[in-house]
Amino acid sequence: MANSKYEYVKKFELDDTLLPASWLVVRIDGRSFHSFTFDHGYQRPNDDRGIGLMNECAKRVLEEFSDITFAIGMSDEYSFVLRPTTDLFDRRESKISSVMVSYFASCFVYYWKDYFGDVPLKNPPTFDCRIVCYPTTQCIRDYISWRQADAHINNLYNTTFWSLVNSGVPNKEAETMLKGTFAKDKNEILFTKFGINYSKEGAIYRKGSILYREKVDVKVKEKPDGTPVYRKQSKVILCHEDVIQDKFWNEHPTLLEV
Amino acid sequence: MANSKYEYVKKFELDDTLLPASWLVVRIDGRSFHSFTFDHGYQRPNDDRGIGLMNECAKRVLEEFSDITFAIGMSDEYSFVLRPTTDLFDRRESKISSVMVSYFASCFVYYWKDYFGDVPLKNPPTFDCRIVCYPTTQCIRDYISWRQADAHINNLYNTTFWSLVNSGVPNKEAETMLKGTFAKDKNEILFTKFGINYSKEGAIYRKGSILYREKVDVKVKEKPDGTPVYRKQSKVILCHEDVIQDKFWNEHPTLLEV
Amino acid sequence: MANSKYEYVKKFELDDTLLPASWLVVRIDGRSFHSFTFDHGYQRPNDDRGIGLMNECAKRVLEEFSDITFAIGMSDEYSFVLRPTTDLFDRRESKISSVMVSYFASCFVYYWKDYFGDVPLKNPPTFDCRIVCYPTTQCIRDYISWRQADAHINNLYNTTFWSLVNSGVPNKEAETMLKGTFAKDKNEILFTKFGINYSKEGAIYRKGSILYREKVDVKVKEKPDGTPVYRKQSKVILCHEDVIQDKFWNEHPTLLEV
Amino acid sequence: MANSKYEYVKKFELDDTLLPASWLVVRIDGRSFHSFTFDHGYQRPNDDRGIGLMNECAKRVLEEFSDITFAIGMSDEYSFVLRPTTDLFDRRESKISSVMVSYFASCFVYYWKDYFGDVPLKNPPTFDCRIVCYPTTQCIRDYISWRQADAHINNLYNTTFWSLVNSGVPNKEAETMLKGTFAKDKNEILFTKFGINYSKEGAIYRKGSILYREKVDVKVKEKPDGTPVYRKQSKVILCHEDVIQDKFWNEHPTLLEV
Ligand SMILES: Nc1nc2c(ncn2[C@H]2C[C@H](O)[C@@H](COP(=O)(O)OP(=O)(O)OP(=O)(O)O)O2)c(=O)[nH]1
Ligand SMILES: Nc1nc2c(ncn2[C@H]2C[C@H](O)[C@@H](COP(=O)(O)OP(=O)(O)OP(=O)(O)O)O2)c(=O)[nH]1
Ligand SMILES: Nc1nc2c(ncn2[C@H]2C[C@H](O)[C@@H](COP(=O)(O)OP(=O)(O)OP(=O)(O)O)O2)c(=O)[nH]1
Ligand SMILES: Nc1nc2c(ncn2[C@H]2C[C@H](O)[C@@H](COP(=O)(O)OP(=O)(O)OP(=O)(O)O)O2)c(=O)[nH]1
Ligand SMILES: O=P(O)(O)OP(=O)(O)OP(=O)(O)O
Ligand SMILES: O=P(O)(O)OP(=O)(O)OP(=O)(O)O
Ligand SMILES: O=P(O)(O)OP(=O)(O)OP(=O)(O)O
Ligand SMILES: O=P(O)(O)OP(=O)(O)OP(=O)(O)O
Ligand SMILES: [Mg+2]
Ligand SMILES: [Mg+2]
Ligand SMILES: [Mg+2]
Ligand SMILES: [Mg+2]
Ligand SMILES: [Mg+2]
Ligand SMILES: [Mg+2]
Ligand SMILES: [Mg+2]
Ligand SMILES: [Mg+2]
Ligand SMILES: [Mg+2]
Ligand SMILES: [Mg+2]
Ligand SMILES: [Mg+2]
Ligand SMILES: [Mg+2]
Repeated sequence: MANSKYEYVKKFELDDTLLPASWLVVRIDGRSFHSFTFDHGYQRPNDDRGIGLMNECAKRVLEEFSDITFAIGMSDEYSFVLRPTTDLFDRRESKISSVMVSYFASCFVYYWKDYFGDVPLKNPPTFDCRIVCYPTTQCIRDYISWRQADAHINNLYNTTFWSLVNSGVPNKEAETMLKGTFAKDKNEILFTKFGINYSKEGAIYRKGSILYREKVDVKVKEKPDGTPVYRKQSKVILCHEDVIQDKFWNEHPTLLEV
Repeated sequence: MANSKYEYVKKFELDDTLLPASWLVVRIDGRSFHSFTFDHGYQRPNDDRGIGLMNECAKRVLEEFSDITFAIGMSDEYSFVLRPTTDLFDRRESKISSVMVSYFASCFVYYWKDYFGDVPLKNPPTFDCRIVCYPTTQCIRDYISWRQADAHINNLYNTTFWSLVNSGVPNKEAETMLKGTFAKDKNEILFTKFGINYSKEGAIYRKGSILYREKVDVKVKEKPDGTPVYRKQSKVILCHEDVIQDKFWNEHPTLLEV
Repeated sequence: MANSKYEYVKKFELDDTLLPASWLVVRIDGRSFHSFTFDHGYQRPNDDRGIGLMNECAKRVLEEFSDITFAIGMSDEYSFVLRPTTDLFDRRESKISSVMVSYFASCFVYYWKDYFGDVPLKNPPTFDCRIVCYPTTQCIRDYISWRQADAHINNLYNTTFWSLVNSGVPNKEAETMLKGTFAKDKNEILFTKFGINYSKEGAIYRKGSILYREKVDVKVKEKPDGTPVYRKQSKVILCHEDVIQDKFWNEHPTLLEV
Repeated sequence: MANSKYEYVKKFELDDTLLPASWLVVRIDGRSFHSFTFDHGYQRPNDDRGIGLMNECAKRVLEEFSDITFAIGMSDEYSFVLRPTTDLFDRRESKISSVMVSYFASCFVYYWKDYFGDVPLKNPPTFDCRIVCYPTTQCIRDYISWRQADAHINNLYNTTFWSLVNSGVPNKEAETMLKGTFAKDKNEILFTKFGINYSKEGAIYRKGSILYREKVDVKVKEKPDGTPVYRKQSKVILCHEDVIQDKFWNEHPTLLEV
């Protein structure tokens, strides 16, 4: 449409194209979820409703943006991985980032009641978002490992911390007890004091949540004689497997194909 | 918290600090709102519920981020202006952008029913967002003028277009009739064919919506004898004034103070 | 010219346009000039040949790039100021930076013998370069003041240091003596120990060197009757004035015009 | 050293760290070498003195910056390749770029007379420089292939063009003759009209110049009995081999190791 003498200001929008041929990670993270989870009475350390909602939102994001091949989430965050060849929004950083994070936030409110039922959503939640480029497959594997290792570290800590607190240890004291401890120390506390075998805790807490796309046979119709007709369709799968070791990647070789 | 050998991947997050001492504009815009407004039965060309909701969200954004001094919105977009001196999120572009756009989107869903009542929200809406730096006060004035001039151009066009269509002219034909016409031609059509004096149309449509912060006297308590006690408080004001001419700025000199 | 299937790699060159309407400073600085000046027997603390050569190179840069309106240099560095409106190389950062710094370096070798005569240039010198955007006139004034204040601070220190050393004080000891001293202490030492009134030292050392462009009347021909005919021509002027105070800028109002 | 109230302007220098783990190419290119080569009477289409000087400068750059593992040059340009792991200047783009291009330019003037003898250097030459990140080994191989393919395309054209012109065909006409021709057409012209078998032309012209680092045995001393003592030393090698095919890379496997 025709425009005004002021239009020159559009020139100040600088190009923010992301480096071609590099893997892209879009990581979102809840803003001040320490307060948000407290205010909404989240179970501690893990609230299944909260995790379910995060996974729902992430799944919607994958369904909306078919260039995302993999995602991993835990706590109040989710990382979405886009292939090196993606040309989504011409690889414009601000477009990809803003569209994904706003859709995630918008889904969070939209699907809230499906997970939290009558618990009222007291205020609209906020998420930050960043995009990081990773040049090689090794880097992107290490990124994913970083997030899963982090999920493990935090969850082991939180599980031990809240077990202590729930058993009557004051918060401050529990903190002091855990300061400087190693994984094996926390496993020990959990086992001896609370009879918890940490490795038997739900994988959803220990490993976080993984989403990926897979071609599956979907029954699309039946022949007149009743024989089912299948077609390959892309489906988003949720799992909680280890993605640090090679096993998962060997079983899903296309995910890291360039 | 302790971390893993994978943590080196954090180094790939590059610094995105915005140039100090420049005005910042954060502009959000609804993604595919052509479809969204159609799918939700928005009044054409302007739906007061939609405008009300956009303004509500923008107001919430201003209340949440006190560094925003001014905002202007129209159609499916809103521009937020931050002072050159702002140090919000250390001026990190992705933080500012993602947090604002996700909050806006989240508010949009949250307050939907306050404006659209029983009209169901069919799907979570999405917004893009970008940040642009403007070095001088002249530039930022021109940016604001650009958006308001654009609001005018689009609204005059849309008003004429839908008047024609509503009077029975087929869409294609209405488009052809308006192609290449100037403002005065459209004013003429509106007046002669529909008795509409465009300049008397609601300022909310012609000028868009303006939000700014103002110190107002708020009654905070009453003395024993009943005398009211006032205190200056910052309040977000909504108006639809002309912000291209100097009048508005002369009346609110602090808004452009550096 | 026709090209190959490999040409896709050109797409990896990302846009590096500098923010429009902001002042640009291109600052070059000699690499390892501590060693370079020592190896070439520069006078301490200031070598007139070295300063002369730096100024020659800077002058050539101004003559080559007419968009530079002002430059200030001291020690092994020079800052070139370009107007907010400059469109040199479409404001591409790497182009402006690389072309200016390579020309400066190339001039340094080219004109070496004009200043150092028989002193052989032992190795090709190197310079780093950066471009910084400054949104407002206040900022660019402050930038220039920063460099001139720095020249003063360093020169006062160096003058005192070398006076002490030349009078027989060992380097280490001179360092210790000056540690934590203020300007007035150094002035005092200079005056009482060496009879030097620092404020009478050459402005070229105390203020650095300033280059700017000025329209001057140049005699272009003579009329038959002998009357000279003048024309305004742009000329690069070298001076060593104070550019922190307003006086210089009031006398040359066009330099900061936007 | 102590500093002034103006020092805040240093904050406007924004971080320009290059993406870790990606290959870096630093490409320099002579500014206006069309004129420069003409003004200095370069042989057409290839001047061995000019090529020798470019190679000399590039070799010096490799000797100065040990993180460069490979370089390829032709005409007035040179590309330097740095390993993904390089931490030169903390991967600061402007530092790497400015220091390399200024050193190259400075060497060009410094070594001019070694190649051009009495031919005076009329003016200091200038080079532009850019840095491009390439995420994968395939990309960097393709980059190198792009430059060598370009060298071939240009040299075949130039050889044919100047053969025609030197045989008396006017410039314009030669241009017209070559417009739209393919490689085989130019080979044909060269062979039938001038008896030139293009593939027998010097590899230095057809392939450009390649520099790389190799560990070689260098005799460092002799034992008392006269037996020589060798030590592995890194040496810069110049060649003109094909680097598009795999052969060269198979023979120098370390060059592309990450
Ligand atoms: N009780 C409970 N808390 C959770 C759950 N998931 C996440 N959280 C809380 C634990 C942390 O306080 C917080 C996530 O930590 P962050 O490092 O992201 O901090 P936060 O979001 O408060 O601040 P930020 O704005 O991200 O810097 O969310 C959950 O399932 N249950
Ligand atoms: N009927 C109706 N439509 C509206 C109203 N406000 C905005 N819209 C529509 C008109 C336009 O089709 C659309 C905004 O135009 P845009 O240029 O932002 O395009 P759109 O959002 O479709 O695509 P985008 O993703 O921004 O590129 O929203 C309204 O109040 N009523
Ligand atoms: N003797 C003497 N030295 C000078 C003169 N001008 C500059 N220099 C020396 C003093 C400093 O050691 C050096 C400039 O300081 P810089 O901070 O730029 O350090 P330098 O160039 O060594 O390292 P850099 O590569 O810039 O980080 O040059 C001069 O006229 N005479
Ligand atoms: N006669 C002759 N000319 C050469 C030789 N090597 C390079 N040149 C010339 C041919 C081209 O006109 C020019 C290089 O082309 P460019 O595309 O780099 O253009 P130029 O440097 O003129 O402009 P630029 O500043 O790079 O955009 O240098 C040589 O050995 N002999
Ligand atoms: O969205 P448009 O078409 O009004 O124009 P734009 O916002 O400049 O385009 P983009 O959203 O692609 O930056
Ligand atoms: O948010 P944190 O504290 O886990 O660490 P970060 O995400 O790297 O910090 P920021 O959100 O400020 O980038
Ligand atoms: O210089 P050219 O014309 O070969 O092409 P380019 O180098 O891509 O152009 P520029 O130097 O302007 O980036
Ligand atoms: O070079 P210095 O030490 O004066 O300080 P700087 O120039 O800010 O440092 P760098 O050259 O590393 O940017
Ligand atoms: Mg964070
Ligand atoms: Mg968080
Ligand atoms: Mg978090
Ligand atoms: Mg848009
Ligand atoms: Mg839109
Ligand atoms: Mg819009
Ligand atoms: Mg420095
Ligand atoms: Mg230096
Ligand atoms: Mg210096
Ligand atoms: Mg070029
Ligand atoms: Mg060139
Ligand atoms: Mg060239």
